[in-house]
Amino acid sequence: MNIAVAQSGGPTCAINASLVGVFKQGIKTDKIDAIFGSINGIEGIINDNLIDLKRVIRTNEEMELLRQTPSTMLGSCRYKLPDYEKDSEVYEKIFECFTKHRIGVFVYIGGNDSMDTVVKLSDFLKTKNSDIKVIGIPKTIDNDLPVTDHTPGFGSAAKYVATSVQEIIRDSSVYSVDSVTIVEIMGRHAGWLAASTCMLRANGEIAPHLIYLPECDFSVERFLEDLRKEKSKHRAVIVAVSEGIKLDAEECGIENFQSGVEDVFGHKYLSGVGKCLERIVAKEIGCKVRSIELNVMQRCSSHICSKTDIDEAEEIGSAGLRAALEGETGKMMCFKRISDAPYVVTIESVDAKEVANKEKVFPQKWINAAQNDVSAEAENYFLPLIQGEVKIRLKNGLPVHFKREAL
Amino acid sequence: MNIAVAQSGGPTCAINASLVGVFKQGIKTDKIDAIFGSINGIEGIINDNLIDLKRVIRTNEEMELLRQTPSTMLGSCRYKLPDYEKDSEVYEKIFECFTKHRIGVFVYIGGNDSMDTVVKLSDFLKTKNSDIKVIGIPKTIDNDLPVTDHTPGFGSAAKYVATSVQEIIRDSSVYSVDSVTIVEIMGRHAGWLAASTCMLRANGEIAPHLIYLPECDFSVERFLEDLRKEKSKHRAVIVAVSEGIKLDAEECGIENFQSGVEDVFGHKYLSGVGKCLERIVAKEIGCKVRSIELNVMQRCSSHICSKTDIDEAEEIGSAGLRAALEGETGKMMCFKRISDAPYVVTIESVDAKEVANKEKVFPQKWINAAQNDVSAEAENYFLPLIQGEVKIRLKNGLPVHFKREAL
Repeated sequence: MNIAVAQSGGPTCAINASLVGVFKQGIKTDKIDAIFGSINGIEGIINDNLIDLKRVIRTNEEMELLRQTPSTMLGSCRYKLPDYEKDSEVYEKIFECFTKHRIGVFVYIGGNDSMDTVVKLSDFLKTKNSDIKVIGIPKTIDNDLPVTDHTPGFGSAAKYVATSVQEIIRDSSVYSVDSVTIVEIMGRHAGWLAASTCMLRANGEIAPHLIYLPECDFSVERFLEDLRKEKSKHRAVIVAVSEGIKLDAEECGIENFQSGVEDVFGHKYLSGVGKCLERIVAKEIGCKVRSIELNVMQRCSSHICSKTDIDEAEEIGSAGLRAALEGETGKMMCFKRISDAPYVVTIESVDAKEVANKEKVFPQKWINAAQNDVSAEAENYFLPLIQGEVKIRLKNGLPVHFKREAL
Repeated sequence: MNIAVAQSGGPTCAINASLVGVFKQGIKTDKIDAIFGSINGIEGIINDNLIDLKRVIRTNEEMELLRQTPSTMLGSCRYKLPDYEKDSEVYEKIFECFTKHRIGVFVYIGGNDSMDTVVKLSDFLKTKNSDIKVIGIPKTIDNDLPVTDHTPGFGSAAKYVATSVQEIIRDSSVYSVDSVTIVEIMGRHAGWLAASTCMLRANGEIAPHLIYLPECDFSVERFLEDLRKEKSKHRAVIVAVSEGIKLDAEECGIENFQSGVEDVFGHKYLSGVGKCLERIVAKEIGCKVRSIELNVMQRCSSHICSKTDIDEAEEIGSAGLRAALEGETGKMMCFKRISDAPYVVTIESVDAKEVANKEKVFPQKWINAAQNDVSAEAENYFLPLIQGEVKIRLKNGLPVHFKREAL
């Protein structure tokens, strides 16, 4: 029997570690022959574009390098499977590819959109009375997948964000004039990553004075009120804001500040919330103001990834393949937290239907009454996820990343 | 005799290491009693706002922490001394402060604006027949100071930029659709930092396919031509662009894309070149396009600073105080490169007049004929400056920075 693995959705620092987890489990399982990598997610299966991973990852050193390489080694996609009833052609192509290559297990590493594929594909295979198993491995820096305690990729993103915000706070406080610094952090509908900046308090550092999440209603008027209050206490005020907070264009007096292009899953590409708030502060308060967008560095800064995150991403990849070999299908693997301190998690499986196309938002119980900060309980939740550092391999003072030879 | 030290201009990762260099040299020099830190650059001298550094930096551990703490521990300023002939009042205040605190040496760590202060102040003190020495220590991530081979702070910024761009390139290449990624890098009039992304080639990695510097004329038409050519060769095209490239608003069809507020030295705060090019690509080429501004993270990402940079910043700080004690004044310390490989530099002093208010731009000899890339010689110049890593102290998975106790 052969197996196939694919990566999908936005890149993270940990998605290649999950690939390594699947691969490692594959090479030590007797009944598995070839381990195929599908290029550009499910598109590689549809187009019969597979590579033999044993010819690509050849040494322990390469395996370690791949673990610390950001982004998806196999490429990614944002392809959404049609409903089988409406369009079965693509399903037949997938089935043909699986049959041709004797694929017994398909492991899909991705976010909630990818779990939609896991559900549809496993349902389809059941109608075919096929024995092929389909398993999902969670992945997203947004940490917004239901059921699982957290998602691989999030810990590394949070470690980068918290570290950078600590450095930005130092940077912003050097002048004797009043200033406001706004840091825009990724998170479409869930504010986990922006909220995680509260971790800075664990070391007695200043955390952002104001934290705004998409889980709360946002009002420009209240924002300016909050800001004036903080400005009376601090010379340099720091604001962390999720890209997904909803600004009222009319209230802002600025139009077209958020681009509205939708992708095939109906997500809006947001940008510019930080820039918009910067303009509002400049106009209404008039002090020195700067907005900073941490942008894709949040999902690809492997040089400062979390060892806990990378190790867990590998483990959950291995666990996914083991679950499939034990007969599970249509499932996503997930973390269950046993305790914060000492930090203990177990890995379980959950019906992918519970996850597909759903989002887990940041809980209201961890948001303060003024809706502009998060509680110490959140700090305890976040901290274990960023612990430990991966010993990054360097050459000429720069990171060495895994290179896929021309195939 | 006492001495005073101050920090000025934009923060860097290395400016505190230079402060440590001055401090270390100070405590081991018999004839020096107190070492004062001036709060917010020269403003601290004018307002008699000094702190006793021996009470602030008390242990070797604190000294090491300060070395790896970004931004300016003593605060900063952008204060420009008036001409003495026009306004002598502030000079008298400075002289009063120096006299009151028995200051024999004033060390000013900063960029070319700060060297203006070194020149004016040392000239003034000569007219007073004063024995007080004034020495400048270079500092800027822009690397644009004349005479010195390079400036402390630049190496760490270049290491962050190159590492991040390598990660961004990985991130940008995962999808099967064509894309253009534009990375906007700091550099008002000098493109050293954007040019330094060429270093990625040293490890066989992809460097930006197009590099645009303020030293070259920029034309939107040629940019689109360059881009179309690169797009025919690569699915994911990466562009590195200095914030300071001059865009013709009319040619862009976009107005007000660059904010034009000038600071007291006549610098324009630029922003938005990347965003502007993004809009042009979207309009004229129509493919997926994203712009990324590395922003202040370039000057404060100490978690990935260059050991060579931090060590040299400390050494040049110590050398500055030694030069002053040997009787030099009105000078800036500078690096002279003896060889690239092995990398050898010596520290010398130069008349601060040679540096004040001047800029050293990236040399044309290292720019290609098409004005959109830099040569391998530049790579050899840059590489030694980013070598080595500082063992960053961490607690709870986050960097520990030096904390100045409430004074």
